[in-house]
Amino acid sequence: MRTLQNIHLTRIDHGFSLTYENRLILRHTPDAPCLWAGAGVADIEMFRGNFSIKDRLDEKIALTHATVSDQPDGWAIRFTRGDAVSATLDVSADDKGRLTLTLRNDAARHNRLWLRLAANPEDHIYGCGEQFSYFDLRGKPFPLWTSEQGVGRNKQSHVTWLADCKENAGGDYYWTFFPQPTFVSTQKYYCHVDNSCYMNFDFSAPDYHELAFWEDNATLRIECAPTYIILLEKLTALLGRQPALPDWVYDGVTLGIQGGTEVCQQKLDVMRQGGVKVNGIWAQDWSGIRMTSFGKRVMWNWKWNSERYPQLDTRIAQWKREGVQFLSYINPYVASDRDLCEAAARRGYLTKDAQGQDYHVEFGEFYAGVIDLTNPEAYDWYKEVIKKNLIELGCGGWMADFGEYLPTDTHLHNGVSAEIMHNAWPALWAKCNYEALQETGKLGEILFFMRAGYTGSQKYSTMMWAGDQNVDWSLDDGLASVIPAALSLAMSGHGLHHSDIGGYTTLFEMKRSKELLLRWCDFSAFTPMMRTHEGNRPGDNWQFDADRETIAHFARMTTIFTTLKPYIKQAVEQNARTGLPVMRPLFLHYEHEARAYTLKYQYLFGRDLLVAPVYEEGRRDWTLWLPEDNWVNVWTGETCAGGEVTVEAPLGKPPVFYRAHSDWASLFSSLRHI
Amino acid sequence: MRTLQNIHLTRIDHGFSLTYENRLILRHTPDAPCLWAGAGVADIEMFRGNFSIKDRLDEKIALTHATVSDQPDGWAIRFTRGDAVSATLDVSADDKGRLTLTLRNDAARHNRLWLRLAANPEDHIYGCGEQFSYFDLRGKPFPLWTSEQGVGRNKQSHVTWLADCKENAGGDYYWTFFPQPTFVSTQKYYCHVDNSCYMNFDFSAPDYHELAFWEDNATLRIECAPTYIILLEKLTALLGRQPALPDWVYDGVTLGIQGGTEVCQQKLDVMRQGGVKVNGIWAQDWSGIRMTSFGKRVMWNWKWNSERYPQLDTRIAQWKREGVQFLSYINPYVASDRDLCEAAARRGYLTKDAQGQDYHVEFGEFYAGVIDLTNPEAYDWYKEVIKKNLIELGCGGWMADFGEYLPTDTHLHNGVSAEIMHNAWPALWAKCNYEALQETGKLGEILFFMRAGYTGSQKYSTMMWAGDQNVDWSLDDGLASVIPAALSLAMSGHGLHHSDIGGYTTLFEMKRSKELLLRWCDFSAFTPMMRTHEGNRPGDNWQFDADRETIAHFARMTTIFTTLKPYIKQAVEQNARTGLPVMRPLFLHYEHEARAYTLKYQYLFGRDLLVAPVYEEGRRDWTLWLPEDNWVNVWTGETCAGGEVTVEAPLGKPPVFYRAHSDWASLFSSLRHI
Repeated sequence: MRTLQNIHLTRIDHGFSLTYENRLILRHTPDAPCLWAGAGVADIEMFRGNFSIKDRLDEKIALTHATVSDQPDGWAIRFTRGDAVSATLDVSADDKGRLTLTLRNDAARHNRLWLRLAANPEDHIYGCGEQFSYFDLRGKPFPLWTSEQGVGRNKQSHVTWLADCKENAGGDYYWTFFPQPTFVSTQKYYCHVDNSCYMNFDFSAPDYHELAFWEDNATLRIECAPTYIILLEKLTALLGRQPALPDWVYDGVTLGIQGGTEVCQQKLDVMRQGGVKVNGIWAQDWSGIRMTSFGKRVMWNWKWNSERYPQLDTRIAQWKREGVQFLSYINPYVASDRDLCEAAARRGYLTKDAQGQDYHVEFGEFYAGVIDLTNPEAYDWYKEVIKKNLIELGCGGWMADFGEYLPTDTHLHNGVSAEIMHNAWPALWAKCNYEALQETGKLGEILFFMRAGYTGSQKYSTMMWAGDQNVDWSLDDGLASVIPAALSLAMSGHGLHHSDIGGYTTLFEMKRSKELLLRWCDFSAFTPMMRTHEGNRPGDNWQFDADRETIAHFARMTTIFTTLKPYIKQAVEQNARTGLPVMRPLFLHYEHEARAYTLKYQYLFGRDLLVAPVYEEGRRDWTLWLPEDNWVNVWTGETCAGGEVTVEAPLGKPPVFYRAHSDWASLFSSLRHI
Repeated sequence: MRTLQNIHLTRIDHGFSLTYENRLILRHTPDAPCLWAGAGVADIEMFRGNFSIKDRLDEKIALTHATVSDQPDGWAIRFTRGDAVSATLDVSADDKGRLTLTLRNDAARHNRLWLRLAANPEDHIYGCGEQFSYFDLRGKPFPLWTSEQGVGRNKQSHVTWLADCKENAGGDYYWTFFPQPTFVSTQKYYCHVDNSCYMNFDFSAPDYHELAFWEDNATLRIECAPTYIILLEKLTALLGRQPALPDWVYDGVTLGIQGGTEVCQQKLDVMRQGGVKVNGIWAQDWSGIRMTSFGKRVMWNWKWNSERYPQLDTRIAQWKREGVQFLSYINPYVASDRDLCEAAARRGYLTKDAQGQDYHVEFGEFYAGVIDLTNPEAYDWYKEVIKKNLIELGCGGWMADFGEYLPTDTHLHNGVSAEIMHNAWPALWAKCNYEALQETGKLGEILFFMRAGYTGSQKYSTMMWAGDQNVDWSLDDGLASVIPAALSLAMSGHGLHHSDIGGYTTLFEMKRSKELLLRWCDFSAFTPMMRTHEGNRPGDNWQFDADRETIAHFARMTTIFTTLKPYIKQAVEQNARTGLPVMRPLFLHYEHEARAYTLKYQYLFGRDLLVAPVYEEGRRDWTLWLPEDNWVNVWTGETCAGGEVTVEAPLGKPPVFYRAHSDWASLFSSLRHI
């Protein structure tokens, strides 16, 4: 046995075991090896962000023999299978003392690696980016590939089946806009992989986690901590942290509106007159629209369309004076038939096809070019588009949409395969937006929000939103799914999350009911940002201004939200400082409660509020579980010391408890009177 | 190069090529090897005959290096990957001169093999047992595992989705009761594998067919012929041929009836009075029924139930005198709560669980034991049950149902893993029935029919039926699907096939329409046997006696069928003699017509009739393709020299042509006047 910086390597039974801060990380014997090498040909098809991914596996070889040699900074382990196949694992500590495992295939034709990390049957696993169906990931494989999240996401649901028949769009439990090769084990370590290739993290075996890499190398970083809170602080020290939110975010709801300047003004007036606190208008059609057989689509030519939005420039200034931001929309594609694309093409800034011609992606009756963000000139040019067309116009923020659609057969300026760059793309797109703010001194003043993400989004994406939920009550793709999404992202180092109030996807038989909109509004008042969306078929959906009762509901819930401003703000600032997420799994603060590790539909909002959103239709009461503490029901003042409780849960009174001894107790108790 | 009995082996580029009768069979180089070895753990779950099968693959290793050594009877090729992994391929000719490839893994822990046979991009492939969705198998993998065929069998169909949600029962294109590791290539060779393990024959690559074996050895037999007809003669010389059908089969329709002696008598009388030619009554509930929450189920205790069927013994004799056979039902399970099971258990004739206790399978509110057909005593005992309880009673035949459900975790008397025996089970079950006939001298007099099959069913299963089609028009699971099923089975060496007139599976929104029943009746008049089925929900289905028009339709179509008796009979006898199937793909007789290789919904019935069943709803005309010949429309007498033609196709006049120069022309021309 030899020890280096808390790393111990012991030779056993013709193999070895590797421990780090007393956690068994690797165990290798000829009969139970920890490393496989192999080769395959990725068979990846994309249609509108929906991917069909198969591996035509050429081979997968167990590397049964391991030879350990000491190195000044650790160990080099050569894995072999006879005299024909080999790979190398370097074990060392990085400059921060993190255990670093570097894998390398030796054969040029080998482009697959499988590593088995040691596990205990009782371990829980969290993270892997934004996971909508599972919070504890134990028991299942999680392929990691940024894509559309799927419509329905459960093969047992009728909507999923309809979406699968239409465009292979139904999805499955692991489909996500924001995958990430990072997980936290209840052995209190995190493991993060530096790569961006397609990976599959399989947590289904009792005694190991099998990580598959579609690349010829991989670098893993592992760090331990005495508490999950310190662990997240360490993880976000590695990955980066989001800056604090602009102050205006806490001042009300951002209304998703389309249709032009006057429509925005009218809806704003109606809502304000109804007592709703409004902090902004988000108009994704600011750049104009395109008519297709599917209905109106946003014109992907990223500049103010003054026909659809006359006097927008002066109105932005006026609204800003009234405390209302104007938020717009952009994505990393440019419509092939418009001038921005022509300008990019002229400069050679679009990604290419195999023949060296500009690559145009089909988006449903129109095509768009892909800005090549690996080309520094193209990247800078697009950043200037953001600065000039969005920031100079006075936008208070925007949706920085997409990032998941990089086709794997396009050719990039940096020479790296698009298959490898695909996952990295969302973070690159985030960085471009982030730097536009940073370089104009607008960080902390302007807010962009994204759905797609990857490693790096922690630092560069100023706010996540949960993407395109169905306007329904389904567990895998409705209101409920937003909660594990926020919590898994929290465990992956991103602590700022919100969602479209009411959901977005309105297809087939789905229509948004009034009850769903109001329950979603209730939930959103206990997240760091409130923002509505009309949905893709606004006429089929109940909207925030549909009747007086709905407006009054928004008035009350935005008042609750703005009342919580100082509390939310300090939680957001803490997230910026230490990576402690704003929406937190219960076990972050209640480590000793076994039940805290299995709950995926309730969370702590900051340190002192426990929220259990109602995610079922027609309910008037709700059962939740409280860890041992002194809890007060926000709406009734009733107290509870913990355990399972059933509370009344009418619309407008989502199950929320606060800690009696909180510094914010008087603020919380004031909510009863709103 | 060295040659042995038309086998040539040539050493090339550190590898070799193997040809047989001028067909390239194997080509191996280090960069494009032909053999892989590996290991996996089969993860097989069964619920009511629906299987979920996954391979937890431990490894798959390309064996890049091949060393050929000459042997007296051929060659031994040792395949290696470095000094650690190896397998052996013996190349020889068997006693009939067939090319024989015998594969063997060397490592004890290796239980997987993959072999790539050389292919040309333009080759078509047929066979693999009974395939319902595809006839030409090129372009897809075909896992070979006997199971339920699935309900819907197409993930785009609503019925499939409903069935998947309910019991994982929806199935897919390759699900079949009768898989077989046998295929015919348009290079005019067949390839047959002796094994019964789970296999996957993947015909999707342009230049090879990859055959995967879940076993540590495999034996392939390959034979060539100048024509497909001779090739089938050779294939059936290897696999066996079905005896000719009893003469009574050609004398009318077998009516599927349930409900007791008097119901049978009444329905028989109604049909005969309506002019229907009836050759038999098939009553699956002869052994009684069991009430479950799903409705009536047959009592799986295989003996005459005289309460439900009073005077059956004397009535059987009476019916027989009138030319009407009585057919019953049996399967290889015995209901756990009845005396036959008790008798089997007492003798130790049931298969066992891991603890050595009798294994009982859940069938939906009742359990049944599995007769261990690998135990010679149990096998003989069950054969006696057939002889005594079915043959002695006077049954003219029976449905020998099931055979697909052998659980992979049961323990068998012969010590072979149930995973290996699973596919072999249907043929073992067929053999038991066959020998009961043979030993009582009833072959050619009594007929049993099966849906499940495997290698060996050619010899032992006296008649196949297509299993449980939906009572609908779907391509993958309705009327249409029976045609590729018959043709693929024909190319696998089984030449006798028929189906439930009207289909069987009646679930969800499905109900059998009158039109479907009549179209199916039209089709069945041009198959070797006509037999009806009420379906699993008789009340939801249109039945043969539902109205006068339907009865009259059956009268006419059974008259057509019986008129064809001498013609069908000689085709059946030819099948018994030479393995030339009764329902034939067009290319058997029109080898030079390219289009003949791609048609899956029309066939030759014997040599001189071409049949193109109408399998779409609401059609009154039909377009078909005729190879170059002198054709006469059976219903109009119009002639045609070939090519695509559109004909009128009212109910009762399915598109059928005969060859003008046929010896049977006058018989065929008489059909116009029926």
